[in-house]
Amino acid sequence: MPGLTVRHWPDAGDTAAIRYLAAWAPPAGLLASLPNLDLVFSVGAGVDHLDLAAVPAHVPVVRMIEPGLVRGMVEYAVFAVLALHRGMLGHIARQRQGTWGDADPVTATPARRIGVLGLGVIGSAVAARLVSFDFTVAGYSRTPRSIDGVDTFAGDANLAAFLARTDILVNVLPLTDTTRGIIGTATLARLPRGAGLVNIGRGGHVDDAALLAALDSGQVGGAILDVTAQEPLPAGHPFWQHPRVLLTPHIAGTTDVGGGAAAIAEQILRHRRGDALTGVVDRQAGY
Amino acid sequence: MPGLTVRHWPDAGDTAAIRYLAAWAPPAGLLASLPNLDLVFSVGAGVDHLDLAAVPAHVPVVRMIEPGLVRGMVEYAVFAVLALHRGMLGHIARQRQGTWGDADPVTATPARRIGVLGLGVIGSAVAARLVSFDFTVAGYSRTPRSIDGVDTFAGDANLAAFLARTDILVNVLPLTDTTRGIIGTATLARLPRGAGLVNIGRGGHVDDAALLAALDSGQVGGAILDVTAQEPLPAGHPFWQHPRVLLTPHIAGTTDVGGGAAAIAEQILRHRRGDALTGVVDRQAGY
Repeated sequence: MPGLTVRHWPDAGDTAAIRYLAAWAPPAGLLASLPNLDLVFSVGAGVDHLDLAAVPAHVPVVRMIEPGLVRGMVEYAVFAVLALHRGMLGHIARQRQGTWGDADPVTATPARRIGVLGLGVIGSAVAARLVSFDFTVAGYSRTPRSIDGVDTFAGDANLAAFLARTDILVNVLPLTDTTRGIIGTATLARLPRGAGLVNIGRGGHVDDAALLAALDSGQVGGAILDVTAQEPLPAGHPFWQHPRVLLTPHIAGTTDVGGGAAAIAEQILRHRRGDALTGVVDRQAGY
Repeated sequence: MPGLTVRHWPDAGDTAAIRYLAAWAPPAGLLASLPNLDLVFSVGAGVDHLDLAAVPAHVPVVRMIEPGLVRGMVEYAVFAVLALHRGMLGHIARQRQGTWGDADPVTATPARRIGVLGLGVIGSAVAARLVSFDFTVAGYSRTPRSIDGVDTFAGDANLAAFLARTDILVNVLPLTDTTRGIIGTATLARLPRGAGLVNIGRGGHVDDAALLAALDSGQVGGAILDVTAQEPLPAGHPFWQHPRVLLTPHIAGTTDVGGGAAAIAEQILRHRRGDALTGVVDRQAGY
């Protein structure tokens, strides 16, 4: 981007000259040392890792929305839904035991009800892609949304109905004070028996003890988790060796360096022209 | 289908009255005991399990093409390609070891070259679906084909060029005298180093020793195999415990009972009307 000087912290130079900050989790004190910030960019899709209270109220915080990140999340979600749909955790466990299993009874794809929890940019893209496979897809969001081919549910009053019709739950929510721990005993109990869980939101959405109890009782048939409450997952945590948990180290969506830089440059240009920014965080809602 | 009497072998009744046979692998002597057959239906997509020489030359053999089976093959292929694309075999192995791995370097989806070996009904559907994910997709077939967004290669002379540009090879070929053992040392050596293999064709396409050597040398980075030369895979076979092999028990495509019955009924109606049948096996080509 011609005319833009980029400095890599801690080589910040004259901090009064810095107008834009792109960061994951800025170190304590950094924001206070930048008196003339116009914008703060999260380099990830979420902002839960960023102390919003440390950002002056007049400085917009912008989430990362770039095609590579969204594509990665969609790929992971499709992989995980197909894996649960086709009983792959059972096949992996049987391979380990040296057992040639019979196929599990096949559920026809249109009879498999997928529920996407969170319908922002990523959740909406995930839901739309799953529709193309002929799954029966619903989505849940705080405020009403409309997506072709997706049965949408909105607001607290409709969460139970959404869960009751969901065979495979895909969590793509942002982590906020409201959503922390949302996938706990009550939520899991509302799913049909043997349901699957895919978590590509944040580990803080899941009550680990509740999930383990649901896996062990058969209420949840399998879980594919890209995120955990503590990362890396501590040694000895039961998720590591659980035969019905597939664990990946927070790799579902990775911001593409080129795509992320282009997204930030585009937002800076909009800001300079006085155009509306996209992906500005609602400080009240926390995402 | 009104007017049609269905008999389940061995309760065949008057065998002279039987005009249509639907079977996987008919027992020895069964075909010779049915003097008035008009058609033989394979209940699977392939016919390699069926002794074509035992079917009288004037009786067409019809392969199973039904939406549920094609959909299942597409689902498995997408699952497997995404798994290899996103390094899931490494994640599964690291989970087993209790190691939180860093993400492997990400290859942007359009830079990942998928090659579909075999472009019949199933291979074409697989290739088209992979295009929708932004992979760079090519396909190879014996005779020239054209699929939107897919770079197609045809004939023996172009196999080497197809393999040289293929990061993840998806085998969907029929098993014939020509294709048996096609995925052997020479074929695997032509792939780029670290390539992935997905086999949803037949186990007989793969030279197991060649694949194991390629996995161990790093020439092949990972293999997802739904079929093996001998099924069930014998105890002690190195595929069972290989950390870069994911094995499933021939479940990629399962003929849906309703869809399969409808497909057979449709073909019987066509035959009675004198219309052309679809999926008739070329006895010379063997598929």
